[in-house]
Amino acid sequence: MYLGSWLSRLCRDLSRPIGKTTQPIWGSLSRSLSSQRIPEFSSFVARTNTCGELRSSHLGQEVTLCGWIQYRRQNTFLVLRDCHGLVQIIIPQDESAASVKKILCEAPMESVVKVSGTVISRPPGQVNPKMPTGEIEIKVKTAELLNACKKLPFEIKDFVKKTEALRLQYRYLDLRSFQMQYNLRLRSQMVMKMREYLCNLHGFVDVETPTLFKRTPGGAKEFLVPSREPGKFYSLPQSPQQFKQLLMVGGLDRYFQVARCYRDEGSRPDRQPEFTQIDIEMSFVDQTGIQRLIEGLLQYSWPDDKDPVAIPFPSMTFAEALATYGTDKPDIRFGMKIVDISDVFRNTEIRFLQDALAKPHGTVKAICVHEGAKYLRRQDVEFIREFAAHHYSQEVLPIFLNAKRNWSSPFAKFIMEEERLELTRLMEIQEEDMVILTAGEHEKACSLLGKLRLQCADLLEMRGVVLRDPALFSFLWVVDFPLFLTKEESPTELESAHHPFTAPHPSDIHLLHTEPEKVRGQHYDLVLNGNEVGGGSVRIHDAQLQRFILATLLKEDVQLLSHLLQALDYGAPPHGGIALGLDRLLCLITGAPSIRDVIAFPKSYRGHDLMSNAPDSVPLEELKPYHIQVSWPTDSEEEDASATPSKNLSS
Amino acid sequence: MYLGSWLSRLCRDLSRPIGKTTQPIWGSLSRSLSSQRIPEFSSFVARTNTCGELRSSHLGQEVTLCGWIQYRRQNTFLVLRDCHGLVQIIIPQDESAASVKKILCEAPMESVVKVSGTVISRPPGQVNPKMPTGEIEIKVKTAELLNACKKLPFEIKDFVKKTEALRLQYRYLDLRSFQMQYNLRLRSQMVMKMREYLCNLHGFVDVETPTLFKRTPGGAKEFLVPSREPGKFYSLPQSPQQFKQLLMVGGLDRYFQVARCYRDEGSRPDRQPEFTQIDIEMSFVDQTGIQRLIEGLLQYSWPDDKDPVAIPFPSMTFAEALATYGTDKPDIRFGMKIVDISDVFRNTEIRFLQDALAKPHGTVKAICVHEGAKYLRRQDVEFIREFAAHHYSQEVLPIFLNAKRNWSSPFAKFIMEEERLELTRLMEIQEEDMVILTAGEHEKACSLLGKLRLQCADLLEMRGVVLRDPALFSFLWVVDFPLFLTKEESPTELESAHHPFTAPHPSDIHLLHTEPEKVRGQHYDLVLNGNEVGGGSVRIHDAQLQRFILATLLKEDVQLLSHLLQALDYGAPPHGGIALGLDRLLCLITGAPSIRDVIAFPKSYRGHDLMSNAPDSVPLEELKPYHIQVSWPTDSEEEDASATPSKNLSS
Repeated sequence: MYLGSWLSRLCRDLSRPIGKTTQPIWGSLSRSLSSQRIPEFSSFVARTNTCGELRSSHLGQEVTLCGWIQYRRQNTFLVLRDCHGLVQIIIPQDESAASVKKILCEAPMESVVKVSGTVISRPPGQVNPKMPTGEIEIKVKTAELLNACKKLPFEIKDFVKKTEALRLQYRYLDLRSFQMQYNLRLRSQMVMKMREYLCNLHGFVDVETPTLFKRTPGGAKEFLVPSREPGKFYSLPQSPQQFKQLLMVGGLDRYFQVARCYRDEGSRPDRQPEFTQIDIEMSFVDQTGIQRLIEGLLQYSWPDDKDPVAIPFPSMTFAEALATYGTDKPDIRFGMKIVDISDVFRNTEIRFLQDALAKPHGTVKAICVHEGAKYLRRQDVEFIREFAAHHYSQEVLPIFLNAKRNWSSPFAKFIMEEERLELTRLMEIQEEDMVILTAGEHEKACSLLGKLRLQCADLLEMRGVVLRDPALFSFLWVVDFPLFLTKEESPTELESAHHPFTAPHPSDIHLLHTEPEKVRGQHYDLVLNGNEVGGGSVRIHDAQLQRFILATLLKEDVQLLSHLLQALDYGAPPHGGIALGLDRLLCLITGAPSIRDVIAFPKSYRGHDLMSNAPDSVPLEELKPYHIQVSWPTDSEEEDASATPSKNLSS
Repeated sequence: MYLGSWLSRLCRDLSRPIGKTTQPIWGSLSRSLSSQRIPEFSSFVARTNTCGELRSSHLGQEVTLCGWIQYRRQNTFLVLRDCHGLVQIIIPQDESAASVKKILCEAPMESVVKVSGTVISRPPGQVNPKMPTGEIEIKVKTAELLNACKKLPFEIKDFVKKTEALRLQYRYLDLRSFQMQYNLRLRSQMVMKMREYLCNLHGFVDVETPTLFKRTPGGAKEFLVPSREPGKFYSLPQSPQQFKQLLMVGGLDRYFQVARCYRDEGSRPDRQPEFTQIDIEMSFVDQTGIQRLIEGLLQYSWPDDKDPVAIPFPSMTFAEALATYGTDKPDIRFGMKIVDISDVFRNTEIRFLQDALAKPHGTVKAICVHEGAKYLRRQDVEFIREFAAHHYSQEVLPIFLNAKRNWSSPFAKFIMEEERLELTRLMEIQEEDMVILTAGEHEKACSLLGKLRLQCADLLEMRGVVLRDPALFSFLWVVDFPLFLTKEESPTELESAHHPFTAPHPSDIHLLHTEPEKVRGQHYDLVLNGNEVGGGSVRIHDAQLQRFILATLLKEDVQLLSHLLQALDYGAPPHGGIALGLDRLLCLITGAPSIRDVIAFPKSYRGHDLMSNAPDSVPLEELKPYHIQVSWPTDSEEEDASATPSKNLSS
């Protein structure tokens, strides 16, 4: 009873706005995460049991437990915590156990103790049904203080709010929270299941590839590692891309690696300088093969405490994703699709629509926000219009429908009755909906409406409408991307949409020499709830084609890739692969607000380890063996830097 | 029949002098490596089967195979290879299959082809019992050339000798060899079994720790990674030591990681700048707990094609190892133990023994080389004496016993009869043995004899005596190391024998303040056949003790470790751990001549990637964001460097 309210407070913090589908509590962790044989959590150590595992079935057993003092009340009982849960300890009151009582009553909170005693029933009326160990308690015989705890910078209770900076500075304390324990254990178990699937079920070989490598063409985001040879540097690669392809040339056939990757993007919110990807490559495979493999992988490794994943995943072309959702990573948990209503307004009197449609690729597009007129407010619409003007230099036209299907809009009087009817039909507009309409070039209009669609979803959810069920995990393949993009700064030049090793779509190969910008690539992205969680492609295995694309189309320095080009000449099998972003995937599954919450020791958004203060200064003599010296910025440069830190820190 | 001799040639190269216990052949790989359910090696891809798996049980089946052309004979058949083995393909000779014949006959060796056909019996008398697929062949209906192969720099056959430089330059071709396929697949499967044991059986959590970290005290061998903040550097740590301890403070309870580690030692034979360790840490554990865990881990993950590992492993104190084997990593597969024979020679007339025994810690030690008089030659003895003189400034005294038990030695006439009898008894000397005797300070004499013991073993094995059975894997724990060593360059100062986080032996704690050099540490090394394959310790969990050792005894800059010291104050549990050197372990298990043979893409001993030419020059503008510039050596420095490359490249 008396623990009930306390425990519910402990768990209160767990209900996060997004993505928290269940509220697991201490002690449920090992049960919910593993459907297989339960591991021996107390083998090889001083305890007989974990705190969280004791039940009525253990009554009468002599147990030894080790853990942290989580709570103590009136010197009569305390609650001991380990990573498996909480258990109630009765502090002995009789004279003969005075030393045990002294230890247990005097040890500060979060001290580490070892206790031995008997598992007994709780007295009638004191059973706590909310606590997994709530039917029992421990009658203690001996106690030992293993380590006393000094005054903490914050309490180890999930409901105690602390800034992220404080959490990162004392990460070793933050890791004691239920949520971090849950996240890291789920991560470990999910990766283990992935390994079982790949290694044990499908014969993949786990190969470790080097991280001290050579810089790659265009690898401006690669960290450098000075070597002991003057002027020679290793690079920390952004992915094992070259190595995985070389492994296929080497006949490894099926490769995977939980690969550490590095990307120096300076300060970026929710990015990490080092991150992890599930890296996969197969020989003799096509796009469908990789997709079926990944669907099986995710289904197999999916956490037991979530709804199972349905396979196969739906698939959508890039063109369709852009036209319907305004993005290459649509969140398909809700509709609000973009509709092309150009034809409705061919004869409109509304000037900005007229202007747009007069242009060669002009279109009019709209989304219908269901119940938008009911939930969205004037200031929301202002925000939307300003956003469109500021980020897209686009005008948007909101139309509200009141309960009597009257149209309310600054432009309402200019919309003709037939337009109104046609629009209603096309967009399935109902009472109290809101329509947001814009005009312009196809891609730009779609992109804007894609953004507004998400903003409207945010706004509706702030008002209590559930659009995106956090318990729903909607995977989607996006395929048929263009192989090349024109460079923004120099539109006559091409760059790879993804990377230069992506094979062109077989039916577009004839366009490579004539209209390369129209060639689709055999690239596929995996999207989960509107987030890109993976991407891959069938690779080019023909050396001549690879040389043509690198040298002729992309104007890259092929010298940097001569080893790969040569390898393709020596019997490279057809191959393809994919990489899943593990941090992002776990972040979505756990509903964590940031990828930092699924990483044990993350860097801050500025790339700092706030706990150890890395990166740090280095004595000059330690630079000497690497033949480097620091180019200290001049005063004026430093001023520039402090005035615009983001500019200084990003690439 | 006709394939038999060819296959035996293919495998000839596999019989390496050391450590090759079985001679697995193509096709036996998946069978020998996995006792569990056989994975689906052909799921999701264009083939129906692998080349190596087809047997008589597949007769009549329509199959599609993909692989490399390994061999072709008289345009009538070819041998197709994939990573699972070899299979014989009958090239169709009838007119209607002319296009198939053309493809299969014209494709160069090592081209990649896809064939479809029927599994048929070989004609009577043509069954090849040495080939796993030797009972069947494939009657081909269709063939497709997937990629033609240009002229190779070397043939893909294990028996074709090539320099290691060539192998590393074309690593992707070298990986096609049976031996490299075997090594990498064994590595993958063994690590997978380790993960099962740790994760699924014993509840360990796989946690990824950062590699971009802060430099550690005395971390002179750490690579630096410049950050975008002027003068600030990350370090690539030598191990996750601090993180694993912090995870214990964070209540993770049982951590493991297959961890990438970095060590910049310049040029060192058989070392790699990046390497992998199985990194483990547990809370509430003692030395015995870790040892039993590791024994179970190795037994569970041990390859099926080797003899099982017997547990528990024997254990030996550091003092005993030094006294008996002259090293802290004894190879206990053979005897030739060091015997202290000081008492035999108390009254000797031999001058250098007299002199040695007259000194305070003087000893006389010897090893008995069984059958040494029979197998070792005069030049061997000269070599041994020169080695002792050169490396240890020590004199050694060889004594040969001929078949009639006559003693032959430059000093024989000075050895008295009673000394002779006592020596024979103590050392169990037999006919045709050789005794090597030296005198001096205990540690130095043991160390020298330990080296000579191994050299004699090498010499005897060159003469055909089997001392160290390559099929035998003798694990040994070495324990009770000293906690501190005195610094060679400054004998009044102490340094950690292993690292400063090792807990002192409980029974020696009282010596910390008085005679710290006598304190033993709770450190344990795991030795396999004379090689250190792991090491670990119970850690200090008491902040005060850790501060005392770091600041007072070791005079380290505690500021660099303030986060760890603070963490110990906040309820750190008692904890301990270990790290196994995965590369070395696999090297010993596979009997590979170098750790480079169990790593997919190793660096040369000078730290170069010979395939891609890393490390490489970097354009100046790519250094700018990191605020560094190259300090080019002056001409005279460069001359120095080229004259003594090893000095220049080592730390």
